[in-house]
Amino acid sequence: MSDINDAIEQIARGTVDLIKREDLETRLKTGRPLRIKAGFDPTAPDLHIGHTVLLNKMRQFQDLGHEVIFLIGDFTGMIGDPTGKNATRKPLTKADVAENAKTYAEQVFKVLDRERTEVRFNSEWFEKMNAADMIRLAAQHTVARMLERDDFNKRYTGGQPIAVHEFLYPLVQGYDSVALKADVELGGTDQTFNLLVGRQLQEQAGQPPQIVLTLPLLEGTDGVQKMSKSLGNYIGINEPPNAIFGKTMSISDELMWRYYELLSFRCSLADIARMREEVAAGQRNPRDCKVDLARELVARFHDEAAAEEAIRYWNETIRGGQMPDDIPLKEIAAPAEGVRIGVLLKLAGLAPSTSEAMRKLAQRAVRVDGEVVEDRDLSFQPGAEFVLQMGKRQFAKVKIGAE
Amino acid sequence: MSDINDAIEQIARGTVDLIKREDLETRLKTGRPLRIKAGFDPTAPDLHIGHTVLLNKMRQFQDLGHEVIFLIGDFTGMIGDPTGKNATRKPLTKADVAENAKTYAEQVFKVLDRERTEVRFNSEWFEKMNAADMIRLAAQHTVARMLERDDFNKRYTGGQPIAVHEFLYPLVQGYDSVALKADVELGGTDQTFNLLVGRQLQEQAGQPPQIVLTLPLLEGTDGVQKMSKSLGNYIGINEPPNAIFGKTMSISDELMWRYYELLSFRCSLADIARMREEVAAGQRNPRDCKVDLARELVARFHDEAAAEEAIRYWNETIRGGQMPDDIPLKEIAAPAEGVRIGVLLKLAGLAPSTSEAMRKLAQRAVRVDGEVVEDRDLSFQPGAEFVLQMGKRQFAKVKIGAE
Repeated sequence: MSDINDAIEQIARGTVDLIKREDLETRLKTGRPLRIKAGFDPTAPDLHIGHTVLLNKMRQFQDLGHEVIFLIGDFTGMIGDPTGKNATRKPLTKADVAENAKTYAEQVFKVLDRERTEVRFNSEWFEKMNAADMIRLAAQHTVARMLERDDFNKRYTGGQPIAVHEFLYPLVQGYDSVALKADVELGGTDQTFNLLVGRQLQEQAGQPPQIVLTLPLLEGTDGVQKMSKSLGNYIGINEPPNAIFGKTMSISDELMWRYYELLSFRCSLADIARMREEVAAGQRNPRDCKVDLARELVARFHDEAAAEEAIRYWNETIRGGQMPDDIPLKEIAAPAEGVRIGVLLKLAGLAPSTSEAMRKLAQRAVRVDGEVVEDRDLSFQPGAEFVLQMGKRQFAKVKIGAE
Repeated sequence: MSDINDAIEQIARGTVDLIKREDLETRLKTGRPLRIKAGFDPTAPDLHIGHTVLLNKMRQFQDLGHEVIFLIGDFTGMIGDPTGKNATRKPLTKADVAENAKTYAEQVFKVLDRERTEVRFNSEWFEKMNAADMIRLAAQHTVARMLERDDFNKRYTGGQPIAVHEFLYPLVQGYDSVALKADVELGGTDQTFNLLVGRQLQEQAGQPPQIVLTLPLLEGTDGVQKMSKSLGNYIGINEPPNAIFGKTMSISDELMWRYYELLSFRCSLADIARMREEVAAGQRNPRDCKVDLARELVARFHDEAAAEEAIRYWNETIRGGQMPDDIPLKEIAAPAEGVRIGVLLKLAGLAPSTSEAMRKLAQRAVRVDGEVVEDRDLSFQPGAEFVLQMGKRQFAKVKIGAE
């Protein structure tokens, strides 16, 4: 019994909703390995540590002896955007899906146990379904309940169009749980509604309803918005050790505790509470805590040696304020009339967009060969070679070539 | 040109909506035979003259040289009620559909020209569709526009559930127009929304949108509610000549003009206007007009000889006030304590319900062996034999047997 209570405590850590705790207890008491489902988007995966909040929870289940199903929702991905309004959401081919699955595998097995992970694709059952089956599935939910979903409700009341097929997607996701006979489904808090649809469809299919477990959306390194590639506030799990380390060191002390709770395996909640007390009492430097967290993350996505090397690099360059001596060289082709600083920062990978580069220039965060640059009209001709710097930690050695 | 104007006038006769008249004109000017679609429910068909308003319009198109498609919507019929809530709406089998199609054929070719009618089933294209195709179809309409449909709107605002698949059915019907490349779709006024969905889907599929033509729902013989089998105010097209004749003679003079407009082929709108004037001026007996209408209907659903015979029977029995001498004998079993008049009228087929029988008793419309009966407690014991009469025209010879 105390084993089961321990397991529940571990599972509940960092979760937002757990529906229902007593169902989880009953299911754990059976002693059989539970089937833990989590669904992933089939479009080009490029995971950041925000995604690992979920992966970590999956890994916990594996460590407790359960079966994890990594479900790739390729069926709807292969449909694309059927309204035809979003030209960038092209239908994926089978080859795209296989390729993306490979890319996922390269990333997720940095967290998950490969031996205890079943990778599945929902096209497996949906490609066997015909139009009549889809109608039968649609009959299992009402329009009013769909419109209770927060985003649908906002769009409907706000006069924004909702295409009818969008009401089918939660049912597709819910039916995956029926097909997989899932015991537990994990997802972000933005998925709660869809996860509950799975419960309902399982009950209608005569299965015990899955336990729903939602996890918070991790804030990005800015500590404000949720972590996202497009906002530029992310730490990618495929980034080099120094980038993961440096970005982790850049977060606020307050955000560090949040990251500890959601991302650290090494520290229990009790360890974290003790650290916070020590920091509050001035017995411990928060920067040291941050180094420990950054080290744990680098070691997870690379290895211990890489983590040690990242600490060394960080101590030498960033803390020491020196320019690193191993900056990679980027050759950038430009027309004869040259390339402007804004575009260059983007091409060199130091800014996600030229408009962001402009903001950074205005903030005096850009240096060329160590000198702050503010002139947005500054341009560079073929032949030039120099070191570009963004903020304290990002460097690029640039050589301008002729187009 | 005047031919086309004549055709439009004929087509427009008795219609409620014609969307759009100018499209119809353009399409007629091409000179090619147009494809005229009308959809029918695949469940056990038992047509009454209310349905013939639509069939007559289809026939008119045939007489103008166009192709009529009698579409049986068997695809959704074979799904049945997927919510499982309506146990009486069992899924139809292929054999049921074939049987019902045969029953339809026996009835509709009393009106339609068999040579110019293409009978189709929408399972032909929907059985080839998979779940992804259904999602793509659903993407072609918005939730908000679906909720504009009158009945959906009433149910949604009234808190009555709408299952999600109900939003797919107008799209299924609309897609039929795409599959058939329909030029014109006919339907009752309750179908306007669905017919317009067809227009929209055709446009999205790059086809010229069909012309939508709606016809009124015919009032039943009571002149109040729409004609319906369950309300008992119908004239079935498979009923015997005397029943069709007698029921037509029972309608009010006012309703007669409506029936003339919607049902008569023999009289143009100008003919009808002239008749009305003559009746209003007292130059013509409205009963003679009614006899002409009843004769036309009997001749249509049977033949001229049957119509003449029905007139003879009606003159002899009903007008002459005589009791017919060929009343069928009904044996009705009753317990020893007897059966009450209300129940008896129902069992003898003279009233659709005992409550209706009670109303008729109160109206002094019921006779037993020619004597008006008002006592609702009157009962009959086994062994009794007598003639029951409801109103002027309905008779039953009854023999009470022991249970």
